[in-house]
Parts: sequence; structure tokens; C-alpha cells
Amino acid sequence: MQEITHHQIMIFFFSLAILIGLARIFGELCKKIGQPSILGEIAAGIILGPTVFAYIAPDLQATLFPSSGPLYVTFEFIGMLAITLFMLIAGMEVDLKCLKKQAKPATVVGISSMILPFAGGFALVYLFPKTFDTQEKTFVTALFMATALAISALPVITKILMDLKLIKTDLGVTIIAAAIFNDLTGWMIFAIVLSLMSDTSGGFPWGTIVGIVAAGAFMLTIGRKIVLALIPRVQAHASWPGGVMGFILTGALLAAAVAEWIGVHGIFGSFLFGVALGDSPHLRHQTEEYMEKFISFILTPIFFATIGLKVNFLTHFDLFAVVILLVVGSITKIVGSYVGAKICGMSQRESMALGWGMNARGVMEIILAIIALEAKVINDTVFVAIVILALFTSMTSGALMKISLKRRSKTSALTSFGRGAFVADLKHPAPAHVIKDMVLQLNIDHEVQADIIQSTISREQLMSTGLEKGLAVPHCRTDLVKKPILLIGLHESGADFDCFDDGKAHVIALIITPLSDPESQLELISVLASHFSSKEEMVKAMTCKSKVDMQAILNAADEMSEKHS
Amino acid sequence: MQEITHHQIMIFFFSLAILIGLARIFGELCKKIGQPSILGEIAAGIILGPTVFAYIAPDLQATLFPSSGPLYVTFEFIGMLAITLFMLIAGMEVDLKCLKKQAKPATVVGISSMILPFAGGFALVYLFPKTFDTQEKTFVTALFMATALAISALPVITKILMDLKLIKTDLGVTIIAAAIFNDLTGWMIFAIVLSLMSDTSGGFPWGTIVGIVAAGAFMLTIGRKIVLALIPRVQAHASWPGGVMGFILTGALLAAAVAEWIGVHGIFGSFLFGVALGDSPHLRHQTEEYMEKFISFILTPIFFATIGLKVNFLTHFDLFAVVILLVVGSITKIVGSYVGAKICGMSQRESMALGWGMNARGVMEIILAIIALEAKVINDTVFVAIVILALFTSMTSGALMKISLKRRSKTSALTSFGRGAFVADLKHPAPAHVIKDMVLQLNIDHEVQADIIQSTISREQLMSTGLEKGLAVPHCRTDLVKKPILLIGLHESGADFDCFDDGKAHVIALIITPLSDPESQLELISVLASHFSSKEEMVKAMTCKSKVDMQAILNAADEMSEKHS
Repeated sequence: MQEITHHQIMIFFFSLAILIGLARIFGELCKKIGQPSILGEIAAGIILGPTVFAYIAPDLQATLFPSSGPLYVTFEFIGMLAITLFMLIAGMEVDLKCLKKQAKPATVVGISSMILPFAGGFALVYLFPKTFDTQEKTFVTALFMATALAISALPVITKILMDLKLIKTDLGVTIIAAAIFNDLTGWMIFAIVLSLMSDTSGGFPWGTIVGIVAAGAFMLTIGRKIVLALIPRVQAHASWPGGVMGFILTGALLAAAVAEWIGVHGIFGSFLFGVALGDSPHLRHQTEEYMEKFISFILTPIFFATIGLKVNFLTHFDLFAVVILLVVGSITKIVGSYVGAKICGMSQRESMALGWGMNARGVMEIILAIIALEAKVINDTVFVAIVILALFTSMTSGALMKISLKRRSKTSALTSFGRGAFVADLKHPAPAHVIKDMVLQLNIDHEVQADIIQSTISREQLMSTGLEKGLAVPHCRTDLVKKPILLIGLHESGADFDCFDDGKAHVIALIITPLSDPESQLELISVLASHFSSKEEMVKAMTCKSKVDMQAILNAADEMSEKHS
Repeated sequence: MQEITHHQIMIFFFSLAILIGLARIFGELCKKIGQPSILGEIAAGIILGPTVFAYIAPDLQATLFPSSGPLYVTFEFIGMLAITLFMLIAGMEVDLKCLKKQAKPATVVGISSMILPFAGGFALVYLFPKTFDTQEKTFVTALFMATALAISALPVITKILMDLKLIKTDLGVTIIAAAIFNDLTGWMIFAIVLSLMSDTSGGFPWGTIVGIVAAGAFMLTIGRKIVLALIPRVQAHASWPGGVMGFILTGALLAAAVAEWIGVHGIFGSFLFGVALGDSPHLRHQTEEYMEKFISFILTPIFFATIGLKVNFLTHFDLFAVVILLVVGSITKIVGSYVGAKICGMSQRESMALGWGMNARGVMEIILAIIALEAKVINDTVFVAIVILALFTSMTSGALMKISLKRRSKTSALTSFGRGAFVADLKHPAPAHVIKDMVLQLNIDHEVQADIIQSTISREQLMSTGLEKGLAVPHCRTDLVKKPILLIGLHESGADFDCFDDGKAHVIALIITPLSDPESQLELISVLASHFSSKEEMVKAMTCKSKVDMQAILNAADEMSEKHS
């Protein structure tokens, strides 16, 4: 350790802690207001970087996040590792079988949603050279801008579709398949752009391009077969899940090294490796989970935060570049996708929704942009504009799709409970009494309380709402509330709700939903019933002392139900 | 990225892939032969390092694993990060409540198992200065050697006890509690050794020592309360498990930074932070899992492999140092622990077993040694001897405990299946026919086959062995086999085993166990029944085409049952 000083180690731990901590906090805040967490993660970097922190305290900023020396190098490598592994996960999400099944619509929508934005991006560089063609590599830059506008963000789109419960519908599958098509083609073109760019001899880099195509073709055919054959063998003979995880990470890193050797960025290698093993029927869901959580919650935020560290977003903000990119990028993408969807015979409404969906650029766009920035294909100003395009389209796509399809998001138990109340010590065994004790805790008008109590008790007398394992879900629907409300009460000795096992209910979840929203009641009951179907969860619930404790449980319940839906 | 070249990035991915890949492969091989995987991980480093690889191809080795420059620095930082997070996980395993409950035996055994080896280690340095006191810091080195021999390895001991199914017995709890006591005291003393060592003024570093004690006391009292109060709040409001994971990692890194600031190694900070949150009733088991798998299967092996990269194990191997350390270290530890156990009223056999158990040094010892080596408290030769002591004691402890307690390991479904057979396409509906078809696949004497078929059918006629969800477990016990044998057959249309649901069995697991081993039959049935109790697992089993496919499933079944036992 001759080269590393004690002081550097301290700074390393400290900087990393601040980076992860702030990125997570901002990411969570964005999620709270319904926005993608990447927005917050980049914002954390912007605050810690040249834009804000260096402006306020330049010396301290330079100490914590230096722009040269061992710490800088280490953060660069860690960021690179993070993004390489993120692309592995993104590749694993690509379902080649889905692409095969939906070959026709995927190709039609895929191509039509790419041609217009591709042309648009290309034209921008020739029309506005002062803004976009600052590196004097007109053709390469134009090709890059074309690709940048043409791709979509598979992960963002997947998340939106899951949220709207569209992922398994025809529309959902077509969007996913078209996005996969977009992704694969887009990245291939981008790889060629990069090789054009890094070629110093001046000639056309045929060697690298042949290498890319050959490596891609190999990985998706023979390579894929080898990987798929190896996975069950590794699973059979190595420890689980460590063996498979080690195999996947080693493979992804080797693929990244080969990609670098061919002359393109390592992320192509790990992405293709991810695609190759993505639809392995043998890969256990759990193994993917173990890798995904750590990579997406810890490593990826570090990468996105370092983006903000690299560029001053204020001094490089150019309103013209931002607006023109947003307008051209969005219009060409939406129109292109709409036309493709129409050709495939989709309805007006669905075609429009597909357009909004495909317009989400998200993470992929930003990764593309940072590589182009580092390869000096674009300058800081264009980079900032692309990041804003990516974030803005990701933020708005979900809402716009929701509006065109008149869809609603799933009711969250946590949010409903936030409007409700928690009663830790119910005593009386009679259901009517329990219901009254709980509703009286609600901070609303007395007459409204009485009304709710009345109709919940009537419903209960009709047929008991006791379920398995000591859970009861008394409920009512009323126009007196505008949004779903969830109250939870704990009953040590058990209330007589006629539950399946011994008749006693220990966790009582009282659900009040508006008449105008007929689905939320069943959704809440289903989340609660499935979460409290295990005895372990019931025991954990009974130890709750405060509303916060119960919120922690409901948060996990929501996450679980989202995962399984 | 001015400082990082394209070539370096390629080397980075390549070296990391080789390091992770080889460490995992060697780790798995060690596990296969019943040895701790860390042995293989260090061996991978030794092969890739100066001992072997540099001897064969010095230039290539220096390119892949340089000992200076950006790659070297990055690997150093990543290794440091790995070990800091490993110590966080190790800290989380420390159960302070267990220590409280078993306060008396923990203190008695804890102290008695430390005094003798402490004295032994101290004496060694003064008795053999040529071997041990090479850095001319006699007192500090003696204090270090004393500490090194005195600590035990909580993680290794926990694993041994789990394997022997002793973890919840009185003996198991006492050993764990004493090891926790050892750990906490040992690390405190080591922190003081380090501060003594790094103090350049020559005076006694009162400031640092006060800092250590104050930080430790704070972390285990007020700090712990704060952390425990924050966890449910984070869980309630942030996404799960990403929010809590981010919180824990940020906290651990901050604690590490503070530790470095006080003047001790960062691992103390993350370890104490882990201890503080270890027994949070709110921390979800699943969250721990997500962190633990990635850290222990991917990050930690990188660290252990880099150990082998640092030192030439051949040229620094000193037989005298190794033997004297092994003899003094083991005898003092075993005798000390034995006496302590006797004082607490344990039986002869149990006291002996406790001695063997406490003698396991494992990972902790190696971490201690590498820090001491880097702080120049010991030289390479002593370092190699300590690593060998750690590995040797970890390798032998389990076996010796097993012998003194006359305990056996749990029967593995995977291993039993390795001796058995797989039949993918059973056709006949009659149980007797199915049993015959399966046993005939066994590669054994015809008469033995006939005998086994006969007794399995008799057993089946006595009472059907059909269980839930279409699993049947026909079985017999016979002296004709020496070890448990498991055969698995799949029956598409279902055999008439009188299963709970519709009477049909689709997965038939035929279990043959020796008369001399009465427990293995029930153990196998329990592993299979619990794994195939979910419909999802049954569906997955039915898609198996070969023995390897089924081995992958049974491997996971074994792991799961180990986790829950």
C-alpha cells in the first residue's frame, strides 16, 4: 500500500458514503412523488459536483471528489464496473422468445419508431452545426445524434407497463418487443459509431465492425447455447446461489473485456452476455434477485451520481439545444411509433399510448451520452441537453400513457394506510365494537365516522370478513371518502371474526374505499391477504408498536405484490 | 477520463474476471471436499500472484496484476471496500442479546480461552525474536501476536455449529456467546495495537485509545438505539429493500470513515455498525440476504484472492515459524477453552468439543494479519505462518468437534441422488411397477435390486407414501446399501400413489437408506417434502430432461433446508 495514504482511505470511505447516501435519499424522494429514482440520483451528483458544491466550497469539493489522482481513478473504475453490471441486468431483462413470438409487430413498430427520430437526429447536426457539431466530426456526431434519438429505454418502459398492469396484455407485449428491437439495433449502430470515432487511421474501421457483428452473432447463437447449457451444470455442482452468481459475473466481465479488445465499450459485452442468458429456463428467479438488488440499488446510483460530478449543468445549460432536442426527439419518436402501430392494426388509443411509451428514453440514453461525451463525439452542452431529454421523457411517459388508456395505478396499501390509523391494543371481542374503536381513531367529522361505522357493521353482519391465519378485513364503500383509507388494528386475545382456523382475528384491516373507485377494495384485500398468509408475517405484525412499524410492513407487502403481479 | 487508457480498461475487466472466476472455482472445489471456501479463494490468489504465475510468466503477470499504477490502486480500494463490507456482515451476525443471556459462561469461557493464547503469543516474540520480532517493535509486535492467537472466528464457528445441527443447543449457544466475547475484546485490543503502532511521536497514544473506547461505547449504546429507531422508519418510507440497503451501507461506510479519522482501520467502524444493527427486530431477513449473498460470494473472494497476490507463499514459508505457531496457538487455545468449559460445569466431551470449536481462527485471523503486515508490525514470513494457522485450524475444527461429540452431518439430497438415478419418463400407473422401473436403473447387482424392490413395495402396501402436490416418497431401509441413495422419477400422467390432492404422483422420489443410519431417511423426506411443497417447484421439476437438471434443483433444495434448519 505504498501509494495509498491513510488520509486517502478516510476520504474514500467518506466520499463513497456521501455519494451512496445522497443518491439514495434523492432517488427515494423522486420515487415518492412518482418520478424515476434516477432523476434524484443524478440530482445528488449535480449537487455534489461542479454545479453546486464546488461553487459553494471549491476546496472541500476538490478534496472529497478530486478530478485526478488515485481516488478519481478508483471512482472512475467503480463507476465503469457499475454500469457494466447494470447493462448485464438490463440484458437479462431482454426476452428473445418474446421478440420471436411478436416478430411482425416488433419489427414494424421497431423500424417505424426508429426511422423518423434517426433522420431527425441526423438532420439536427447538419442544420445546427454551431450547437451540435462542436467536435468537428460532423458525420460521426450526426450518426450518434441519430442513434441517440432513435433508441428507447427498455427498463423504464417495462416499469411503466408493470405499474399500469399492462405488461401481459397484447399492447404491453408489443411495446416490449418493439423496445427490445430498438435496443438491439440501436446499440449495434452505436457500437459502430464508437468504432468510427476511435479509429485514428482515418479509414473506415471495417475490422472493428466485422468484429462487432461477428461477436454479436456468436453471442446470440452458439455463445447463448453454451451459456444455457452451462447454467444448470453450475447450478448442479456449485453452491447456490454463489456459484451461478460467480459464473454470471465472470462471464459478463470477460465479455466486457472482449468487447474492449474488439474496440467497443465494455458495456456491449456485458449487455449481450445478459441477453444470452436472459431467458434461461434454469436460471432461478432468486439468483437474479440477489444480483439485481445489489447492483440496481447500490452500484447503479453510484454511477448516476458520478455523472453529475463530471459536468456543470448550469454553465452548460443551453435553452435552444434543450428545446430543439426535446421537440424533434419527441415528435419524431411519437409519430413514428404511432404510424407503426397503426400499420399493425392497433386502435387509435392504443397507437397513441404506444407512442408515449416508446418516447421514454431513460437510463439507456444517458449511458449512451456519457460514453459519447468521453469519446468527445459531443460536448458538455449537448450532453446536458440529452440528459434533460432522457429525464423529461421518462418522467412524462407514464402519466401520458395512463391518460390515453384511461388506466389507473394499483392501489397502494402503504398510501391508503397513510390516510388511515393504527390501533395497537384492541380489547373487545365483538366485531361491531372493534370496528367502532377503529373508525373513531380517524381524524374526520363525527357524522362521517358514524356513517362509516354503520355501513361497515352492516356489511360484516351480512357475512363475516375473517380470513385465514387470523386476519379480518371489514370494509365498506362510501361516497364520504375521496380516496382509499386503510386502518389497522391489533387484537392480542383475538376478535370474533369467524376466521378459518380458530375463529379469532388478531390483525384487523379496515378498508374504506370511494364508490367511484370499484377496484381499490379488492386490490387492498388481495395485497393484505397474500402478505399475511404466512404465520411469520402475522407474528411480525403483532409486534408492531407504532404506525411507523406497521408502515414498514405494508411497504414490503406492496413491493411483494407488485413483484408477483 | 484523461488518466485511464482504453488498454487499462480492458485489463481491468479481464483481471477482475479472472480473479472472481478462479476464486469462485477454487472456493467451490474446496467446499466439495468439505473444506472452507476461503482456502480455495486464497489459493486462487497464490496461483495468480508472485508464488506461481509470476514465476512462470512474470511479464504477463505484471501486466494483469500490476503492483503500482491505477489498476493496482483500484484493486487495493476495491479489496478494502470488500473487507469493510464483509466486516459489516460479520458484525450483523453478532447477537448481543445472546451474549447478555449467556453472560456468565460467555465471560468465563471467553476470558479463559483468551488468557493462555494471549500469553503464548506474547511469549513467542520474546522467546524467538529472530523469527517473530523482525520489525524492531518488540512490545507492539508481541501485543499483536498475543491478540492474533487469542481471537476466534465467529463466522467459521457458526457455520460448523449449523452443519452439526448444534446451533440452538446449550453447547452451541455457549460457544457462540464466548466467540462473540472473544471477537469484541480481541478487536478492541487489536485497535489499540494499531494505534500504538501508527503513533510516530513515540509517546503512548492516549488520544486514539480514548477515541476507540468512546466510539465503541457510543456505537453500542446510543448509536445502537438511534440505528434501531431509524431502521423501521427507513423501511416505512423508502423503497424496499433498496432503502434499507442504502441506509446500512451508507452508515457502515461513514462508520468506517470515522474509524479511520480516529486513527484505526476502517473495518472496526463497519464491524461495530454491523453489531449495532445486528439484532434489530425490524430488519427483514430478506434484506440481510440480499446484501450478504453479493458481499460474501462476490466481493469477499476478491479480497481473499488479492491476499495471495501480495505475498510469495513459497519463498516466505518458514517451517519453524509455522510449526511453533500451530503448536502454541492450538494448545493454549484448546486448553484454555477446555478449562473454562469445565469451570462452567460442562461434561468432559462437551468441554473438549468446545475447545476444538474455539480453536477455529478462520477469516478474522487473516484480516488481522493482513492489516498487521501492511502496518509493518510483522513481516511476510510471519504473515504466511499466521495464514496457515488460520486455514489449518478452520479445516480441522469441524471434523474434530464431530468426532468428540459423535455427531453426523445432515444427509444431503444432492449427494444421495449422485449415487442414485433419474428416470424422466415413467409410464405405468401402478406404484409397484413404478418402483420396479426405477430401481432397475440402479447400477447394482440384480439380486440386490430385487431385494430393494421387494421391500419398497411391501412398505408401500402397508401405507401409501403419496404426499401433497403430487409428490410420492416410496422408501426402504436395508443393509444392502452403505450410504443413502435417492432415485427420482417423473410421471407425466401421474402414478396412483394416493397423494393428497387428486391421488396422482408426478414426482416420485425413491429413498434407500442403510439400517445403520436411522436418521437419513427422515432427513431426506423432509428436505424433499418442504422443497416440493410449492406448485412452482413441482412445475420446474417436471421440465427436467436430465440428471444434471434435477441435480440443480436438489442443490437448491439442500441449501434452502440448511438455511431454515
